[in-house]
Amino acid sequence: MKETATLWWDDELAGIRYIDQTLLPTKYAIVRCTSVDRLITAIKRLEIRGAPALGVAGGYGVALAANLCTEVSLNAFTRKVQKESGRIRESRPTAVNLSWGVDRVLARMLAVTDAASAQKAALAEATAIAAEDTRCCHAIGDYGAALLPDPCTVLTHCNAGALACSTWGTALGVVRSAVAAGKHVKVIACETRPLLQGARLTAWELARDGIDVTVITDSTAAHIMRTGKIDAVIVGADRITGDAVFNKIGTYMHAVCARHHGIPFYVAAPLSTFDATRTEREVTIEERGRDELAVMGNRTLIPDGVPVKNYAFDATPMNLISAIITDTGVVRPPLDISALLSENNAHSS
Amino acid sequence: MKETATLWWDDELAGIRYIDQTLLPTKYAIVRCTSVDRLITAIKRLEIRGAPALGVAGGYGVALAANLCTEVSLNAFTRKVQKESGRIRESRPTAVNLSWGVDRVLARMLAVTDAASAQKAALAEATAIAAEDTRCCHAIGDYGAALLPDPCTVLTHCNAGALACSTWGTALGVVRSAVAAGKHVKVIACETRPLLQGARLTAWELARDGIDVTVITDSTAAHIMRTGKIDAVIVGADRITGDAVFNKIGTYMHAVCARHHGIPFYVAAPLSTFDATRTEREVTIEERGRDELAVMGNRTLIPDGVPVKNYAFDATPMNLISAIITDTGVVRPPLDISALLSENNAHSS
Repeated sequence: MKETATLWWDDELAGIRYIDQTLLPTKYAIVRCTSVDRLITAIKRLEIRGAPALGVAGGYGVALAANLCTEVSLNAFTRKVQKESGRIRESRPTAVNLSWGVDRVLARMLAVTDAASAQKAALAEATAIAAEDTRCCHAIGDYGAALLPDPCTVLTHCNAGALACSTWGTALGVVRSAVAAGKHVKVIACETRPLLQGARLTAWELARDGIDVTVITDSTAAHIMRTGKIDAVIVGADRITGDAVFNKIGTYMHAVCARHHGIPFYVAAPLSTFDATRTEREVTIEERGRDELAVMGNRTLIPDGVPVKNYAFDATPMNLISAIITDTGVVRPPLDISALLSENNAHSS
Repeated sequence: MKETATLWWDDELAGIRYIDQTLLPTKYAIVRCTSVDRLITAIKRLEIRGAPALGVAGGYGVALAANLCTEVSLNAFTRKVQKESGRIRESRPTAVNLSWGVDRVLARMLAVTDAASAQKAALAEATAIAAEDTRCCHAIGDYGAALLPDPCTVLTHCNAGALACSTWGTALGVVRSAVAAGKHVKVIACETRPLLQGARLTAWELARDGIDVTVITDSTAAHIMRTGKIDAVIVGADRITGDAVFNKIGTYMHAVCARHHGIPFYVAAPLSTFDATRTEREVTIEERGRDELAVMGNRTLIPDGVPVKNYAFDATPMNLISAIITDTGVVRPPLDISALLSENNAHSS
């Protein structure tokens, strides 16, 4: 299996290069990004997407802002980079990783004493986030693989794969690690309307790695669960509070149906996705534009004037989740996220 | 509210005219159909769709076959029309109404003694089916409207509306009758992948009638149920056996989620949809082609070589259904379909 990165820093370019995920599966194109505005557009348009990848993009985004900043005085330099970082942080509201990546690199940058060192420190910290993300995905993969029977069929939603991370993936990292360990895993990929990350991205990256994948419409999942063909559901997460998992719209429906059929429902996500500071009610669920539902290529799918509700995410309450597969092990609800995070900070320090 | 028919017999044409439902919502086009082959293509391509409309199409199809038949001897005439009718009956396997309409007109035709009378009898019986369908939809509408609170928000899936029937609709007939009775009804229409009958057809016909409709992706339904915005789910049916309701793929998912949230789940269907001769296991669920999922207009949505499972229908077990709204009243599981049908035959004879 290849370990192609989704986005990375290019020294020669002095900028970010990334796979444009809106063009897959028909076109594999690497974009060269050398401005904060272009990065923000890429995040808003979902050219770069997936919670862990947004963490990496947030980190590199601050490094890019620092690199572009021509202020010499540390004070002016810091103000300018903080302002640019704020714009990156706000480009999507639901995934916690974006602001986490931005803030981590900003904090590292603020610890130095001159502008030139700040540029270097920002890039070093962003690079460290990307490297850690790869390590986390492999750890998640190994912990999760142990939960899967052999052979098995796994249902997944959206894309929590290599494309959503630095490499390897979270939910699909579990699949990859299980396959690497010799298990026979089939994947049912829900297409994931409206933007079809399952059909376009999950199918593309699993097929590329030779992993057995079949695409269904999102609403077919319950029927296949009922006919007994699913051993586990595994999804990623955009934010995990003590009371709920925020992930791509449709995740909650799969969780309800998995519970109805007695099928284990797993969430695979690094600890950087956990948010001890909020409860479900305090998290904004992003609503996106009408055209994502109403238009597809050259076709109009909804009559003019008819409104849509286009929530990008939903919240799944903890009691429907069998386990969360993290980079430090498998945890089961009820969760005390503060304790979990401080325990693991203690371990790693 | 207009009562536009979906398909009808045109004496001047000596054939069937129908709204091509594959072209909506961007194009409203009436097709002139004067051959059995063209009708079969229309049914297979879903230009005509919806269980009750398929019953009407089956009936008119036999009338068309009879009209086109040039055999003079009653024996040869009957053989030829029966053969053509068999081809119509088999053009889609899951909806019971298609074979019901075909067989009802064939039976009426076989009761006469010469070919010319047979042609007239077939057309009269097919016309009677269409008229009965309109009566049934209004009866279903009135029985169902009484079940809805005022105001209310109803979630529906696919299109069980005027376009799926002669006129008025089954699930949407309930909505229309409630609105006609002065109730304030909002409709959440699930887009219904892969062919988007909810986005294209339900939204189109409700907006045309000035009824408040909002489109969501199918997987958004559970999230909206959880946030407390749905008072009832109402869907149509393609076949109702004693143990299950067959309807558009996704219906089962909504039923599971409605039960989880304590929301009533109603099925609206005429008695012609009931099948006392089979149980769930004996009904074939149609699987349709890969391109319905993989291609949309000019866009490829799934990488080449990746397979799909494209079930057109699913089965919802009776225990998840709150009530079935029929043209003779509201029935609640458990059902004895044979008793129900013979009781109502007794009433109507």
